[in-house]
Amino acid sequence: MNRSAHYVGERSFVVEDTPSVPPGPGQVRIAVAYTGICGTDLHIAHGAMDQRVRPPAVLGHEMSGRIAELGPGVDAHRVGDPVTVMPLDWCGRCPACRAGHPHVCHRLTFVGVDSPGAMQRSWTVPERIVVPLPADLPLPRAALVEPTAVAVHDVRRSRLTAGEHAVVIGAGPVGLLIGVVARGTGATVTVLEIDRDRRALAADLGLTTLDPASVDVPEAIREATDGAGADVVFEVSGSDTGVRLATDLLAVRGRLVVVAIHPTPRQVDLHRVFWRELELIGVRVYEPDDYAEAVRLVHGGRVPADRLISRIVPLDEVSRAFEALAAGGDVKVLVDCGGGA
Amino acid sequence: MNRSAHYVGERSFVVEDTPSVPPGPGQVRIAVAYTGICGTDLHIAHGAMDQRVRPPAVLGHEMSGRIAELGPGVDAHRVGDPVTVMPLDWCGRCPACRAGHPHVCHRLTFVGVDSPGAMQRSWTVPERIVVPLPADLPLPRAALVEPTAVAVHDVRRSRLTAGEHAVVIGAGPVGLLIGVVARGTGATVTVLEIDRDRRALAADLGLTTLDPASVDVPEAIREATDGAGADVVFEVSGSDTGVRLATDLLAVRGRLVVVAIHPTPRQVDLHRVFWRELELIGVRVYEPDDYAEAVRLVHGGRVPADRLISRIVPLDEVSRAFEALAAGGDVKVLVDCGGGA
Repeated sequence: MNRSAHYVGERSFVVEDTPSVPPGPGQVRIAVAYTGICGTDLHIAHGAMDQRVRPPAVLGHEMSGRIAELGPGVDAHRVGDPVTVMPLDWCGRCPACRAGHPHVCHRLTFVGVDSPGAMQRSWTVPERIVVPLPADLPLPRAALVEPTAVAVHDVRRSRLTAGEHAVVIGAGPVGLLIGVVARGTGATVTVLEIDRDRRALAADLGLTTLDPASVDVPEAIREATDGAGADVVFEVSGSDTGVRLATDLLAVRGRLVVVAIHPTPRQVDLHRVFWRELELIGVRVYEPDDYAEAVRLVHGGRVPADRLISRIVPLDEVSRAFEALAAGGDVKVLVDCGGGA
Repeated sequence: MNRSAHYVGERSFVVEDTPSVPPGPGQVRIAVAYTGICGTDLHIAHGAMDQRVRPPAVLGHEMSGRIAELGPGVDAHRVGDPVTVMPLDWCGRCPACRAGHPHVCHRLTFVGVDSPGAMQRSWTVPERIVVPLPADLPLPRAALVEPTAVAVHDVRRSRLTAGEHAVVIGAGPVGLLIGVVARGTGATVTVLEIDRDRRALAADLGLTTLDPASVDVPEAIREATDGAGADVVFEVSGSDTGVRLATDLLAVRGRLVVVAIHPTPRQVDLHRVFWRELELIGVRVYEPDDYAEAVRLVHGGRVPADRLISRIVPLDEVSRAFEALAAGGDVKVLVDCGGGA
């Protein structure tokens, strides 16, 4: 049998035993070890995406586990291999796929949102989304490969290079990962965060931090950059204020990476965009190269995954995991799905 | 003596004789043949920039003429040489200049706006802003090198390539020039314009046109691009509607070039920017390479400058030139400054 957590609407989950799904041709069944909860999962659990994610639904797309069973014709994996998934399933035929950008496929299935996810002990998925992991990478850390791939993608799209100055607005898990990955390019990184605990964690990770509530940030960044401004700003706060601040901070030819998801249009200072020849760069999920790099960074310890995991909760207590995350104070909460033994 | 037109505020000009300014060291005096009127000049003449341009002021930065006199130490030109100017004077020391982007210098002097311009028969300027012209390029056409350089810069920043589809929103002089330059890259170009006469002119220049007031533009562009959307949109209308339409039209990884100057912040659909991984690209004036290319395009006839010049008015009637342009119906109005003989 398979133990699985079902989001049933209005912040509620039911955990129950259901039959395991045997893998069909081109599929594998994964024994799920750990599944992280991301902001989108929280958003879904709060009912904000019930049009797209119709309850009951199994959530979860940040995961690690081991191959438990191979479907007919699958020979690239062996039972027991440690794996994660890149949770994107594309059509291969739309204009985005044809243009070589399948990760933003017009008909993209985001696995764990548009199809059943990893908050279950036994998870059957297409083999093509499976990503092998190094044997010596601890599985809790491996659950952070997916959000690390987001950060790798965002930093790559920013074209940040050694010697440049980057600012990250917002130090949630993605902001912190972007900060760490950005610093890894050789850039100087300043993280803006109003929450004291998150600022402390960013500082613990070796990042320079500023409290935008108590510091004149544009002045501070001008001083830190000899009057030039920031080369890159990652807007991870999702706020109107963040967008406004971002354009104010940028140097001539600076790049604003729009990381957060803004549900409504935002006022953007296009005069400043013109005056300083700024760029705004949209970013969404990741590509296979980003995943490969994310595995390397988590495996090599350059992304300190352990220090971002603030809590691990058993699958049967998944509601508590979501409540803890919603209450604030946590960084990354993992659900122990029981398949890691 | 020098005949010169002085903007004196509230849409008024005084044309009078003043002493010629003898060129000092590193300067040349130009006998001005033709000076074009651009949107910024019209804006200034309507009093909208009186804080920056304090009347009385000689306007004009789109020009052609001949070297009339060399200041001490100037030996790169000869009297009689046909020239135009790249009307940018930078400091060489600010962060933008140090970063190799002097055209967006923090302390840029835009000649003809921040310093006296070319609506006079005799104009003394720093030698370093002078651009030599081919001897056989007619001087009226040569006055269109400056706006052509704007278009070259904008198309270059867009990274438009052969086989891509570009949309130009707004068919004023700059929009038309962008359309022509964009098509020169081998791209397919569609121009959106509500004014019938401008649409007819764009069509005369061989550009595909659409009337956004009578056509479902997103549907038309989807059809024209096999469902993908446009690779590049040049927003030249300066309107909220134009910005909204631009993000709607773009394909995955499409680039929105912000050409028009938006005096106030605009609502930008950052969700679409994220969803399709769009880019917004700010553009301002031009760089020396753009000028060199603009001279080649105007000289070779690939930019049909003659067909964009709708009126040539003598310097003494400069008020009439501005009134004609403000009334609409004209494309490019030149002022004959009398130095072309």
